[in-house]
Parts: sequence; structure tokens; C-alpha cells
Amino acid sequence: MARFLNDRRQAKGKIPGSIIHLGTKKVDRPKLRLMHYTPEIIVETEPDNLEVCKAAIVENSVTWINIDGLHDAEMIQKLGELFTIHGLLLEDMLDTGQRPKLAETDELMVVILKMIDYDKKSQNLSSEQISMILDDNYLITLQERVGDQFDHIRERIRKGNGRARRKSADYLTYVLLDTIVDNYLDTIEILGDIIEKLESRIFLPKQKGLMQEIYKHKTEINFLRKNIRPVKEIVLHLIENESGFIADDNLKYFRDLNDLVVQASETIEIYQLMLNDQMMIYHATLDSRANEIMKVLTVFSAFFIPLTFFAGVYGMNFEHFPELKLKYGYLYFWILSILITFGLLVYFRKRKWF
Amino acid sequence: MARFLNDRRQAKGKIPGSIIHLGTKKVDRPKLRLMHYTPEIIVETEPDNLEVCKAAIVENSVTWINIDGLHDAEMIQKLGELFTIHGLLLEDMLDTGQRPKLAETDELMVVILKMIDYDKKSQNLSSEQISMILDDNYLITLQERVGDQFDHIRERIRKGNGRARRKSADYLTYVLLDTIVDNYLDTIEILGDIIEKLESRIFLPKQKGLMQEIYKHKTEINFLRKNIRPVKEIVLHLIENESGFIADDNLKYFRDLNDLVVQASETIEIYQLMLNDQMMIYHATLDSRANEIMKVLTVFSAFFIPLTFFAGVYGMNFEHFPELKLKYGYLYFWILSILITFGLLVYFRKRKWF
Amino acid sequence: MARFLNDRRQAKGKIPGSIIHLGTKKVDRPKLRLMHYTPEIIVETEPDNLEVCKAAIVENSVTWINIDGLHDAEMIQKLGELFTIHGLLLEDMLDTGQRPKLAETDELMVVILKMIDYDKKSQNLSSEQISMILDDNYLITLQERVGDQFDHIRERIRKGNGRARRKSADYLTYVLLDTIVDNYLDTIEILGDIIEKLESRIFLPKQKGLMQEIYKHKTEINFLRKNIRPVKEIVLHLIENESGFIADDNLKYFRDLNDLVVQASETIEIYQLMLNDQMMIYHATLDSRANEIMKVLTVFSAFFIPLTFFAGVYGMNFEHFPELKLKYGYLYFWILSILITFGLLVYFRKRKWF
Amino acid sequence: MARFLNDRRQAKGKIPGSIIHLGTKKVDRPKLRLMHYTPEIIVETEPDNLEVCKAAIVENSVTWINIDGLHDAEMIQKLGELFTIHGLLLEDMLDTGQRPKLAETDELMVVILKMIDYDKKSQNLSSEQISMILDDNYLITLQERVGDQFDHIRERIRKGNGRARRKSADYLTYVLLDTIVDNYLDTIEILGDIIEKLESRIFLPKQKGLMQEIYKHKTEINFLRKNIRPVKEIVLHLIENESGFIADDNLKYFRDLNDLVVQASETIEIYQLMLNDQMMIYHATLDSRANEIMKVLTVFSAFFIPLTFFAGVYGMNFEHFPELKLKYGYLYFWILSILITFGLLVYFRKRKWF
Amino acid sequence: MARFLNDRRQAKGKIPGSIIHLGTKKVDRPKLRLMHYTPEIIVETEPDNLEVCKAAIVENSVTWINIDGLHDAEMIQKLGELFTIHGLLLEDMLDTGQRPKLAETDELMVVILKMIDYDKKSQNLSSEQISMILDDNYLITLQERVGDQFDHIRERIRKGNGRARRKSADYLTYVLLDTIVDNYLDTIEILGDIIEKLESRIFLPKQKGLMQEIYKHKTEINFLRKNIRPVKEIVLHLIENESGFIADDNLKYFRDLNDLVVQASETIEIYQLMLNDQMMIYHATLDSRANEIMKVLTVFSAFFIPLTFFAGVYGMNFEHFPELKLKYGYLYFWILSILITFGLLVYFRKRKWF
Repeated sequence: MARFLNDRRQAKGKIPGSIIHLGTKKVDRPKLRLMHYTPEIIVETEPDNLEVCKAAIVENSVTWINIDGLHDAEMIQKLGELFTIHGLLLEDMLDTGQRPKLAETDELMVVILKMIDYDKKSQNLSSEQISMILDDNYLITLQERVGDQFDHIRERIRKGNGRARRKSADYLTYVLLDTIVDNYLDTIEILGDIIEKLESRIFLPKQKGLMQEIYKHKTEINFLRKNIRPVKEIVLHLIENESGFIADDNLKYFRDLNDLVVQASETIEIYQLMLNDQMMIYHATLDSRANEIMKVLTVFSAFFIPLTFFAGVYGMNFEHFPELKLKYGYLYFWILSILITFGLLVYFRKRKWF
Repeated sequence: MARFLNDRRQAKGKIPGSIIHLGTKKVDRPKLRLMHYTPEIIVETEPDNLEVCKAAIVENSVTWINIDGLHDAEMIQKLGELFTIHGLLLEDMLDTGQRPKLAETDELMVVILKMIDYDKKSQNLSSEQISMILDDNYLITLQERVGDQFDHIRERIRKGNGRARRKSADYLTYVLLDTIVDNYLDTIEILGDIIEKLESRIFLPKQKGLMQEIYKHKTEINFLRKNIRPVKEIVLHLIENESGFIADDNLKYFRDLNDLVVQASETIEIYQLMLNDQMMIYHATLDSRANEIMKVLTVFSAFFIPLTFFAGVYGMNFEHFPELKLKYGYLYFWILSILITFGLLVYFRKRKWF
Repeated sequence: MARFLNDRRQAKGKIPGSIIHLGTKKVDRPKLRLMHYTPEIIVETEPDNLEVCKAAIVENSVTWINIDGLHDAEMIQKLGELFTIHGLLLEDMLDTGQRPKLAETDELMVVILKMIDYDKKSQNLSSEQISMILDDNYLITLQERVGDQFDHIRERIRKGNGRARRKSADYLTYVLLDTIVDNYLDTIEILGDIIEKLESRIFLPKQKGLMQEIYKHKTEINFLRKNIRPVKEIVLHLIENESGFIADDNLKYFRDLNDLVVQASETIEIYQLMLNDQMMIYHATLDSRANEIMKVLTVFSAFFIPLTFFAGVYGMNFEHFPELKLKYGYLYFWILSILITFGLLVYFRKRKWF
Repeated sequence: MARFLNDRRQAKGKIPGSIIHLGTKKVDRPKLRLMHYTPEIIVETEPDNLEVCKAAIVENSVTWINIDGLHDAEMIQKLGELFTIHGLLLEDMLDTGQRPKLAETDELMVVILKMIDYDKKSQNLSSEQISMILDDNYLITLQERVGDQFDHIRERIRKGNGRARRKSADYLTYVLLDTIVDNYLDTIEILGDIIEKLESRIFLPKQKGLMQEIYKHKTEINFLRKNIRPVKEIVLHLIENESGFIADDNLKYFRDLNDLVVQASETIEIYQLMLNDQMMIYHATLDSRANEIMKVLTVFSAFFIPLTFFAGVYGMNFEHFPELKLKYGYLYFWILSILITFGLLVYFRKRKWF
Repeated sequence: MARFLNDRRQAKGKIPGSIIHLGTKKVDRPKLRLMHYTPEIIVETEPDNLEVCKAAIVENSVTWINIDGLHDAEMIQKLGELFTIHGLLLEDMLDTGQRPKLAETDELMVVILKMIDYDKKSQNLSSEQISMILDDNYLITLQERVGDQFDHIRERIRKGNGRARRKSADYLTYVLLDTIVDNYLDTIEILGDIIEKLESRIFLPKQKGLMQEIYKHKTEINFLRKNIRPVKEIVLHLIENESGFIADDNLKYFRDLNDLVVQASETIEIYQLMLNDQMMIYHATLDSRANEIMKVLTVFSAFFIPLTFFAGVYGMNFEHFPELKLKYGYLYFWILSILITFGLLVYFRKRKWF
């Protein structure tokens, strides 16, 4: 399966707006979690169906409905009906190969983006699509699997201190986005650590899989870039806030978020440049090493080739061979050998070959 | 024939606006297919001439006229007269090397673009030019050959369920465009699969045609980029909808289409980067392998060159040659050989050559 | 002489606006050709001086004055006086190293650009500067040499059918520009053909001059890019038509022209990418071939080097040399040789060297 | 720790806006320094707490409060309360991995950026985060450590001559920014010197660590680019001066500052290009040298290989070996050797190998 | 000293706006030259001080004050006082590492840019900073040394023919700028000539310093780009003419100037691309040549290695050695040698190695 596009074959021939889950099934049964709070009270339940969730929404309070698992098309269909979400948007939420996007209708705002983590065990990037549906009094989040990414946020809301409880649903959206963008930065940092550790290896001999590693990280950086770049557009659009889903008072948070996203994408850019440089330099280092080896071979051969020839000459069996009869012939041979060796030595020195 | 420009020689010296089919003749006789429907009724015919088609168009219904085969200049001339299409536009529709374009007049809107498929048999991209002429109540499509690309849309209209039948001609345009853009994504996915499969091969020895393959895919990616980039402009212009050919209610579909096109071109960009990297890395891997081989040669030669010289020395026929008369001369020779070998071994170890 | 800048030394130290012909003299005596037509009548003459030409201009008809040959500074001076063209513009028309430009004054519009052809004989690009001066009722064209590039347009006007005769001077301008841009596309097509034919050669051995050819085509593509890019700006500016030299009714022709220019520059871009890739890949292919050759050398040497050593050993003349006296010594030598060869064979196989 | 992102692990799981110092602790105890001046008088103290500082601020005078050391979260908290600075901004000031930024509220303007120096001892870039909080009558600066970077400014204010004393707090901001940007230019100049000195070495043999050095400088240039690029945005925004924190009269200073920043980033760009070229060319030079060495090996081997063969031939022990019995056999051998050598010499000359 | 930044150490620690000459002292004593003219009269003097110069300025005439030599800080100070030029601008005029800039105040307009020449003797670019201060009735120019760059303009003004005398100070500014930009184009042409001459050498053997030359020209092109790019911005801003220092009637001259600057920077771009290509191709050509040499070595070695082995075999001294006793043993040896040679020949041919 192509890594940079989700498998689209399942949707082939369907009419646009068909609600099919495009992606691997990552959880058995979708799980609903509901959190309802005002600055004073907080209620947490795990309802069985969406109707219960909808009923919980009231003015002047925040209702956070979280759905883990996207493969129950019926439930998503019901979600669309209850909250009047257009089929095209539902389709986008289910297609886990979806490009991060922001959509606004008169009633609600939808943000779809990727949560990205670096799985230290498998040494791979793992990603999960997160969709958020925001209205004045509620926020619905859809996740591919039952995750613990947002647990510390839940914890903070439960404790009831800080801004978390006093603020409205748009602030909750910010907190979730901030967590996701923080994860981007963490991922980039881990990857950056690994990339910077490669630095020392590119100048060492016998780094067999190094090129593979560099290539792997280039692909990972491409993956990050592909998923973070659209988030930059989304956050910029949120700051402009033409549709007014964000309270003016909370805009500063989103502006701060923007700083983080810009930092993320600039850092990615730099690591991309560094990987290119590492590749180039590793390549050049290999050449330079081959060069070194070749020089030794040349010097070695060059010293012995003429000597071996002369040894061969005096091993010839001509009947008339005056030198062989000389008393110090053998000695002369060694003197000749030493002279040749010395001559070559001087020549190589002059050419700075060693 | 240059691959990235259609053969223009046929049109040379003609006045601009001449109606000549530029391209290979892909079908024998143009074939007309007419589909006329309202939410309630549907009529399908294969009329002989365009006059019949024009007569079928009435208010509050959709008429879809499909022409397969572009080489009948007379029919196209007639098309222009019946539907008041300017000669320049007719010329563009016939020139299959035409850059994808959008043209709007007061009466109608014309979209010309490429349907692109990956032919798995020949392992090549195949492309076909599609022209669409849209007015309030009808849509005319021109194809180079009798295809089945739009058959599933016909099927859906026949069945009469879903939005397909209730919506007007601009929605039908969207459905066709969506099919075409979906094909782009499918093509990119197939190509992406192939490109990602190359990854494993670039690090293996004896991949003889690999460079050719990489080059072939680079050219394919260039071809896709050349044809999809203008489609992005077209869809963006459709969304702005200054001419009002799209009902406001249907704009969201085109916005969704835009997401797909953007995703297509971003994915192309990434595959282009990946191919560049693969090329670079494969090149470096070859070098690295040559390096490896050279090292073995050097070590081998370096071990034997001095030994062979000494063997040569003791094969010389000098009459006065004291060593030859030594009782353990031959033994000493082997001891000398072992010492030399051992010395070189230490030297090479120290330089980390093996 | 630098290829991408015309020889400027002639103009050195002159005041700006001096009317000097910068460029090679391509024709002996400037030649005047006049074509005067209405939809009904047509007159063609070759007048001796520009005063006659000017006298021919009347309302409601088109006068096309063509001047072949730029080196008669006096005539150009007279041209400037008669038609009130500013000295700076005259200077630009004469400087054949001029960047393509569009200038508009209250009275007239001047377009200067390059006609580019691929001369198949010399296998080189040839270019000629064309200047056009457009007013309501006349069009003056200046060419470097007596060419036949516009002959088919003259022919069409003479025949008097088609739009050519009915339309005004701005349409004539369009037809000339269209011819020039068509020539760009033809040139790109020819060059594209040549470039695509290189594809097959980069993977073949013994392609001695290939690098030179690639470099030559890169320079040609640079030349095209340098001359066509400003034309894109010119045509875009013509479409905006702020000065009103183009009749609104004719704007669609210029929009069509824009499509062609955009296509030209996008195709150039792709061929530039392709040449870069070809260069890279040819380079890599050479490396890969050297690799192949080196392997054979290594294998060959590696097989024989130890054998030759042992042959040398048994050619030594030690008096006490027990092996030499063995009955099957010679046989043992061959057995040893075969064992060594076989061992190396297994080793090389394991390393996948052949 | 990744070099291009500050260690974020400390902040993980905290709510946004938590005031934690992210970075290494560079000073023991934060140190307060206060400078209060009008054109006539000047007072300098080192108060113990911020309340004293705040009390010093009066109309028509400038109060410059400098805090060295960021790790005392309580003091920063107090700072936020006294001067009504939002928690998010405080957090940014403490996070030393923060991207340079400009924030404006109704009451004050905050600029965060990096002071960058080239530490000549360690041959490394060192950077320190500087935050500035500007209101009409005071400027607060936060530094990571007790530095002497601004001492010459203090000196100038003390002396009381020049503009320094007469101007208001926004001018003081300019003077500090100017010092910081001047440091950028100094750093670039030092780095530029080093980079330009590499030039001569890339063409010399035996430059072992050169690639490492080039890579190191590429990373440094990346670091500078990452930190200076946002400063360009900041200064541009200051010039637009929509919030009016800068007196119109002082705008020219900031415009001058802009020139410096633009020059800094353009020079960085050029050094980046130069390092790329140096890398490429050094790589090519290595190849060229290997080429040279190989040629000598080839010529050497080629001369001796056939001669050695013939010496071997006449060392064979066939009983029937007519040449061996020739009177001048040995002489003929040398004649043959000279002929072969001479032939090869002519061949190599013709191919221009030496 | 870093080549792309002027030595800034002299200014370190000074307050911004300090009037110090940053650069090498290129002339002993600043020299004043004054030219005062109307269409009717012309006066030329070399006054001793600036007060005299100022007194010469009257309405409806042009006064051109030229100062050669920048190092007399006092005179520059006086200049600032007499003509009310801000200290920051004076500072910029003196800093010869200044980026080309345009500054406009209510009273006057300042243009600072570089005159660039190619010194054919030293084969190096030489540059000199030129500052221009323009008001309605006068133009002050500052040059680093007493040059003859503007002598032909003086000559023209003296002669009193052409526009030069009739026009006002803004036209004089244009003429000077035109001279400077013409020099850019001349420099690019000379450099272009040199670069294009490299073309033929990259495919020839034994081009020892070629890489150095290419690198040198790359640095020169970088230098030109760095200094001409800002001039493009300046000229564009002059054309917009928001401050009205240019008479509307003279705008066409500046537009023409813009064409020249755009041409200069586009040509630079192309030469940059060409140098990159030359570098790449020269690198590849070296590889290709090494490849060629290696092939000869391989073929040579491959032919002789087995033969030498067999010669060695028959040189062995085994007592029991049946072949040696064969009557035609020696003949058989040669037959074997010829067969081996022929076999290898066929093999190499098949692999297309020669």
C-alpha cells in the first residue's frame, strides 16, 4: 500500500459522499465517552448511543463527546443526522488518508488532522486521524483507536483548577490542538536527536546501513511535512476567525499555537537540509576513503612491479647471459632495487601521495 | 514524437481557430450517446446527429450528450454552430496536446482536461482528453475513444437513487470531474506503490535496470504534474464561481474536489522528492559497493605482491647467490612470507579496512 | 561574444537613446513592404521610403508596413519622426540583445520579441528580433532579415477569406504573435524530440559525446526560457488591456495565445528537469559500468594472484627444496591451484559479485 | 538533545501558559539592574525586588529594568502580575527554544529574540535568549545570564551625550536591537572569514577533516538562518508600526535596522551557496586526484605487465627452447622490451594520459 | 576579511549614526568638483569647501557636486549639516559594505549603490560605492576614489547638445544610473564570455585549475547577484515615484533602466545555472575519463595475468614435470597463450568494453 496515500480501492465507484471507513480497523467496537462540565460541576459517562450524548448538550456548559473507532458506519451516519453534518464531511472524517482540513458551515466547524507519534519500540512514526466538530456548546472528537493522548487534559478538567474548566468549547479545541502540535514538536525532537546522532557516523568507516537509515529518515521527514504543512494553513485560518467560532478573547491562544506550528515546519525544513547534506557528505566520505585505499594499492604496486620485473629478468634461462656470471651480480640486483624504490619514494613524496 | 507536446505539424500554417483534430485517431466513427433525465423520468438514446441532441434539451431537466471520437471535423463544426461555441474553443477541444483549461463565455462554460490511467498491462500511463461543455440544462462531453470510465455514473443515474438524479447539470459536471480526479489519485497510488517498492531494491546488488525504472517513473511523475497542476487552477477558479455556472448549493462539492486535487499534487511532489533521493542513494550505494570490492582487491594484491617478488628473487639464476645454498633457505623464505603477511594484516586492521 | 547578452561594446559611451544598431548586420539594404486592405480591397507595394507608407494609412482600413533589416539608422530615425516614436524605443528595437518588452504610450503600443527557429541543418537555434508598432489603423513590423515567416499570413490576407481580412490591426498583431508563439512550440517540440531520443542512449555504453550534447541542449533550453518568459508577461499584460489597444472582441484570441505561452514555458521547465535527470543518470550509469568492469578485474586478479605466487615459489632455485623432488609435486601444485580457485569462487558467490 | 529544538520534555503535560523555565540554568540567582534617566539626571541601582522597579517608573523619563537569569519562576510570575503580561508570553520568555517573536497587546509590546555570538575559544556559536518588554516609559529586558553585551550602551547613557539620553524608551529598544543585529553581522563576518579560508584548502591534498568542517559550518549557517529569518519579520512589522509603540520620529532608525537584517540574511544565503559549492568541488577534487593516481598506476602497470610476462616466458624450463640458445637472445629480449615500452608510450601520449 | 561583508570591527561599540568611514582608504584627499549648468551656460570649478558648492545652487539650473574620497569624516559631517542629511544616511554612505539602498526624506532622495567593473589585468571584479543625493536643483555624488567613470557624461554636458543639458537634475541622476547599470551589463558580458569559453575546456583532458576557475566565477556571480538584486528593487521603487522626485516626463527613462536591470539579473541567473552545469559535467567527465583508463588497465591486465601465470608454471623446477620434456612444449605454450588472448578478446567485445 502506497504510504503517502490511503488505500482508495475500497471507495472506487462509490458516489462521492458515501460513508465508508477508508483505513485499517484499529479498534473493535467504537467507544463513546462524554464529559460535561461547567466551572462548578462535572459529569463523566460512557453512553451507549449518540442520542444520549446529544441530549446532554445545554447552553452555558461544555460537552465533550469522544468517539474512539471509526469503522461503525451506522454510528457515523447517525452522528451526521443528529448534528446535521454533511455527508462529504463525514466521508472525510472516515477516510484516514484525508489531507488535514478545516471546514466551516453556518452551524459548525470541522477540523481534521493527524496525531503523530514516534513509536520508540518499532522506531517508526505512527499516526492517527483526529476529527473535531465544534459548535458553541460542544466539541465532538473522533479518534481511530482508544488512545490516552488526551488523558492529561481530562485529568486537568476533572481537577477543575486553571483555565481549563472556566473556558468554553473553543478553548477546549485549542487545548486539544495544542496537545497535537506539541506531539509534532516532540516527534521532531526525537527524530532530530536521531538525525543529529548520525552526524558522527558519516565520517566513520564501516557504517553499513547508514544510507538506509538516512533514506528512512528522509521519508519520515516527508511524512511529517506532508501532514504538518496543511495544519499551518488551518491554524492561520483559525486566527483570521472570519466565521467567529473562536471567542476573540481566546484568539491569543491560537496565535501562540501558530508560533508552534511555524516552528515545527521550519525545524522540519532544517532537518531536511541536514539529511541532504549528510547524504552528500557520506557519499563524498566513501569516495575519499576509496581514494585513500587506492593510493596504498598504487604505491604498493608501483614499488614492487618494477622489482618483480627485474627479478623475472634475472630468472631467465638464456645461455648467454653475462650479468648472471658477475661475482656481485646478486648484490647489484639489490642495489638496483633499492635505487628504484628510493626514486619512486621521492616521486610520490613530491606529488604528496603519502 | 515529443511526449510532452502533441504533434503540432498538422496545424502548421493554418489560421488560428482552424478545426483540425490534432492527435492520433483512437476510434473509427464518432459515437453519440444521449441521456435525458429529471428526478422522475430517464431516457437514453444513441442519436445519429447533433440536431436530435439539441432538440432534446428542455428546461428543468438534465441532458447529457456524450461524443466518443474527435476526428470527425464536420460534426465538431456542426457542434460549434448548434451550441454557439467559438472556433478557438473547438480547436482546443480537438488538439489533444492542449493544456488543461477552463473557458467561460456568457452562454457556456468549457472545461478541457486529461483522464489519466495506469495501464497495468503495458506498465505505462495512458491519457485521454475530455472536454465538457456546460450550460444550465445540458452537459456535452467529448472523449477521444469509446470508454467505460463514466459507466458507473450512468448506472447510478439510471438507478435514480442518491443525489445523482435530483441535482442539475453542474452537479453532473462535478461527478465527472470527481471521477477524473479520483483516477488521478488512483494512478498516483499505483505509481506510488511501484516507487515505494523500489526502495528495497536500491540497497541490493545486481539491480541492473533500476536506473532506467527510476528515470521512467520520473518522467511519469513529470507527466502527471504537467496535467494535474492546471486542473488545480481550474478547480480553484470554479470555486470562486464568478460566472455563476455552479449553483451556490453545489459549491461545497467543488471545494471537496479541490481538497482532492491539492492532495494529488502534494503527493506527486513527495514522490518526486523520493525518486530524487532514490536516484542519489542508489548512485551512492553503487559507489559504496565498488569501494568494498576495491578493498578486497587491494588487500589481496597487497598480500601477494611482495611475496611474489621474493619468490621471483629466489628464482633468479645468479651464479653467486649465497642464500640459495643455505640449508634452511626455503624455510626462511616461508618465515619471511608469513612475517610480511602478518605485518600487512596488522596495518590493514589498524586502518579499519576489514 | 557572450551568448546571452548582445555585444554592447558598440554602444559604450553613447548617450541613452542613441539610435545605433546593436547586432550583426543580417541583410544588405532594408526592404519596405506595404500591405493595405479593407474587407473589400487589397493593395500590395514595395515603396522606397517611409513617407509613402505613412500616406497610405487611412481610417477604417488596415495598413501593414514591414521593414526587413535594421541597420539603416537614418531610416529608423525617420520612422521615429514620422510616427512619433520615442528615441529610447527606437534604440530598443535596434538592440537585438534587447529583452522582450512591451511599451505603451498614449499614441501607440510597441512589442519587441524574438522569433526563434531550430535550424535543422546546423542543429542550432537561430533567433531574430521582431518589433511591432501598433496603432488603430496600422501595424509596423521590423525584422532583422528578409524572412518568409509571415508569408503564409500574407497569403491568407490576399485570399481574403476567413477573419483575416475583416478584422482590424490588433487582430493582425495577434496573428503575427500567434505565428511567433507557434514557432516557439515547434522549436520546443523539435528540441523535445531530440532530448527524448537521448533517453535511450544514456543507458548504452560508448556514448562519447553525450555529455556535450546534454550540455548543449541545457544551454538551448536556457536560451528559450530567457526569451519566452518575458513573452508570458507581455501577453498577460495585453490581456489586462488597460490601454485599450486591443478591441474587447479580440481579447479572446489573446487569451488563447496566453494558453500557448504558458504551455510553452511549462514544457520548457519539464525538459529542463529531464535534462538534469539525464545528466545525473548518465553520470550514475558510467559509475555503474566502471563498477562492473572493476569487478571483473578484481575477480580475474584475485584468481590468478595467489596461483602466480605459488608458481613463483616452485620456480625458486633453493638447493634444499624438498617439494621439488616429490614424484607427484607437479600434480599437487595443480590440485592446490584448483582448490584455491574453487575457494575464491565460493567466496565471491557469497558476496554476490557475479 | 536536538540542537534545533529546545528540550521540551520538562513542559510535557503541563497546561499551556505554565510558567516553567525551559532551558539550561545559566546563572545562580537572577540579578536586577535598574537605570532611570531623563536628559538631565540619571540614577542606577540594583534593587532586590520588582516592586521597587515598578515604583521607579514615571512619565517623561526612561526606566530600563534588566533581569539576568530566567530560572526564578516566582519572580517571573511577579513580573507578569506587576506589568500585566499574559501567562502565554511569560511562558515564551522562559522557553529558550522559543522562535523569535513579536507580540503586541494594548498595553505593551514584547520582542523575544536571540543574541548570537561566535565563541572563538570553543569555535562554536553561542546563543542567549533576550526578551524585551516595551511600554511608553519603560523597557524591561530579560537575559539568560549576566552578560556584558549591553555594557557599552549603559556607558553611553551614563555619559549623557548623543541621542541616547534625550530619546525615549522606544529608541532604547532600537539601540538594543541594533546591538543584537550588529552581533549577527559580526558573527556572520567571522564565520564568513572561516568559510572563505576553506576555499584555498579544497584544492589541496590531504585535507582530512575538511568535510567535517564544511558540515559543521553548514549546520551553523542553518542555525543562524533559523534565528535571523524571524527577526526580519519582526523588524518589518515594527516598521509598519500599526500599534504605535514606535514614535514616528524614530521609525527611520528601525528602517536602518531593517537594512542590516536584510543584509545579514542575504549574506547568510550566499555563504550557504558557497558551502554547497565547496562541498561539491571538494568532492570533485578528490575524484580528480584519484583519477590522477589511477592514471599513474595504469601507466606503470601497463609498462611492466607485458615485460614481466616476457621475462617469465624466458624463465620457462622447456627442454626444447630455441630462443634460449641464441647468442644474442638476452640482447633481443631487451630490444623487445624497449620496443614494447616505446609503443605504449606513443599510445598513452596519443590518448593524452600524461 | 570576509568578502561579502565589509570589515565591521572599526564601528563596533559606536552608537548607531556615528560617522566613520568603513572601508579601505582609496584616495588621499577628498576632491570636490562642481558643474553648474543651464541649457545656455555651463560653469566648472573645483572648490575647496562645501559652502561654496552650496552657494552655487539656484533655481532653474542644475548643480552637480561630485566628491571623490570618503575618508574625511569632517567634510561628510559638514555635508550633512549644509544639506540636512540625517546622520544614519551619512553613516550608510561611508560604510562601503552597505547594501544598495534608496532612502527618501521630505527634502531629498538618497541612492547608494555599487559601481562594478571587471579589472582585466588582475582578472578580478572591482567595486566602488557610489552615493547620490538628489534634490530639485542639485545632485551630489560621492565616490570612493577619483574615477573616470562619469567623464563621458561630463563631456556630453559640456558639449551642450542632446537632452543632457536641457533636462533637470533627476535626468542627470538617470544618466548616472544608466552608466552604472551599463557597467553591470558590460561586466556580466565579460564574465559571460569567460564562462562560455570554459565550455570547451570541460570536455578536454588535463584541465588542472578548471575547478578553481569555475569556483572563482561562481563567487563572482554571487557577488554580482548580491549587489544587483537590490538595485532592481531601487529602480522599481523609483518608477512608482510616490515621492515625486522624478518628473513624470522622465519616468520613461527609468522604465528603460528597469528593463536593463531585469536583463542583468536574468542573465546572471542563467550564468549561475551554466556554472552549476559546467561543474556537474566536468565532474562527470572526469569520472568518465577515469572509467576509460580503468578499462584499458583491466583489459591489459586481464590479457597478461593468465599468460604470466602459465609462464610461471613452466618456470617451476619440479623434477618430475612431463610437459617440459615435450618436443613442442614451447610451441604448445604459445598456442595456449593465443587461445586465452583470443577468448578474452571475444568476451570483452561481447561486453562492449572496447
